[in-house]
Amino acid sequence: MTTTLQFTKGQGTGNDFVLFTDADGETDLDGVAIRALTDRRFGVGADGVIRAVRSSALPAGAATLASDPSAEWFMDYHNADGSLAEMCGNGVRVFARYLVERGLVDLPVGAALTIGTRAGVRTVRRDGSGFRVDLGAWALGDDEPTVRARELHAARPGLSLSVGNPHVVVALASDDELDGLDLSWVPVLDPAPAEGANVEFVVPSDPLVVDGIGRIRMRVHERGSGETLSCGTGAAAAALAVRHWAGAGAPDDWAVEVPGGVLGVHVAPGADGEHVSLSGPAELVFSGALTL
Amino acid sequence: MTTTLQFTKGQGTGNDFVLFTDADGETDLDGVAIRALTDRRFGVGADGVIRAVRSSALPAGAATLASDPSAEWFMDYHNADGSLAEMCGNGVRVFARYLVERGLVDLPVGAALTIGTRAGVRTVRRDGSGFRVDLGAWALGDDEPTVRARELHAARPGLSLSVGNPHVVVALASDDELDGLDLSWVPVLDPAPAEGANVEFVVPSDPLVVDGIGRIRMRVHERGSGETLSCGTGAAAAALAVRHWAGAGAPDDWAVEVPGGVLGVHVAPGADGEHVSLSGPAELVFSGALTL
Repeated sequence: MTTTLQFTKGQGTGNDFVLFTDADGETDLDGVAIRALTDRRFGVGADGVIRAVRSSALPAGAATLASDPSAEWFMDYHNADGSLAEMCGNGVRVFARYLVERGLVDLPVGAALTIGTRAGVRTVRRDGSGFRVDLGAWALGDDEPTVRARELHAARPGLSLSVGNPHVVVALASDDELDGLDLSWVPVLDPAPAEGANVEFVVPSDPLVVDGIGRIRMRVHERGSGETLSCGTGAAAAALAVRHWAGAGAPDDWAVEVPGGVLGVHVAPGADGEHVSLSGPAELVFSGALTL
Repeated sequence: MTTTLQFTKGQGTGNDFVLFTDADGETDLDGVAIRALTDRRFGVGADGVIRAVRSSALPAGAATLASDPSAEWFMDYHNADGSLAEMCGNGVRVFARYLVERGLVDLPVGAALTIGTRAGVRTVRRDGSGFRVDLGAWALGDDEPTVRARELHAARPGLSLSVGNPHVVVALASDDELDGLDLSWVPVLDPAPAEGANVEFVVPSDPLVVDGIGRIRMRVHERGSGETLSCGTGAAAAALAVRHWAGAGAPDDWAVEVPGGVLGVHVAPGADGEHVSLSGPAELVFSGALTL
């Protein structure tokens, strides 16, 4: 039997997604279908596939509804390789745009929306230019691995931290050093984290803070994906690391320039520790139909 | 004013295209629109954009109709960077599939269709599994440049030839040598052709001919694009070069394995010299709509 999939392609700072609505949980794509969809030459092409499904229609949604009954919609996220992912900082912002544009939720500018994910319920707020997501509490990691990368002439110290998923952040000396990195090779971490980590290379601006906002440039190598144009949790990790290094008096607002655009990172106290949130553009690019 | 573009995404052995119908020549996209469409993260993503326009509705179509009044449809082809291209061996085959599937032409299996291009009228024949295009007469070039490439430890002799566009073909010693090439670096030709050239690296099979068909593997670096999964005229050039080297008794039928699949190449006498034709899969992947 052939099925026609109605989908939408969306992106946030160049992280791109195939989104589709399956309100009642009837179209759970398998790994073969996900890989066919995300192939950039033979399929639609994307970093990930997001299914919009009611929390009540999904086994994983039971925890969502137990934690927050207002989280009607669940972001069912698969990586391009078909594996499940707990969360995606840019993905959840594009997902919010999708729910709004498709009329699945009503979200005026300034209002907040709760969304179910495998990492728990996330709150997305619509602001003037895009969508801001609270990524939850962050934490420093236990070790500080050294990092080697191609075209980087000596190992550098990295700072490990968690923003729901694991990151290692490395400060570089100059824009030239950042631009010269060859991230077609996987950076080598020592000690190597058991689950791997995304690695962010950052250059703080000089001066670091302008108009109360800390400014940094970043490139990222995502475990399993290679270099990408953007990584939402990576931008948050990069800002948190530079803020940690800067010490007392460092700002809570950051502008992180990634190859695909600029993301805003904000740090604020929360009930369970400091929360970090991510803001920036989230756009729908086109709609389409494909026979599976 | 915003316009909604109805388009189709198609591919042939991994060479991919955005196609749309503009029968009366009212939607001539500019370079900015082409680059936005072909961007793989912020747009639809493709190697090129193909507009289906009636030859009678386009200045360039006058020559088409003068040469062959039966060539009702013109393949208006732009490269991903917005530049015009005369021809594209995989593109014209996907274009034929598009005209058939959209009901713009009637083409039973075995029948032939004439198509206007900036390189002249091309004839496409529908066979059992795909579409075969006659690329016209081919010719050996005037020089034999040496070729250097990353991970290739010495310069190699290249054979230059034209299949409507310029190519240089280099024979390698083994599959390992072919697989080890790093084509993220542009191969260096000496002397350098004035207009540049696509460079094909080939490994003839051992034995070369099985069941009357010559078999080779190929990787290609396209001028202005870098390494691609396939290049139709490049596959033709690769087969012609190996056939030239093999000398008397070499077959007229070739199977060329490219990273995106297998293309068939056939050589036959024509009124203006030996013609080369290209066959293989040509598929429509999905349809979509996008606001320009």
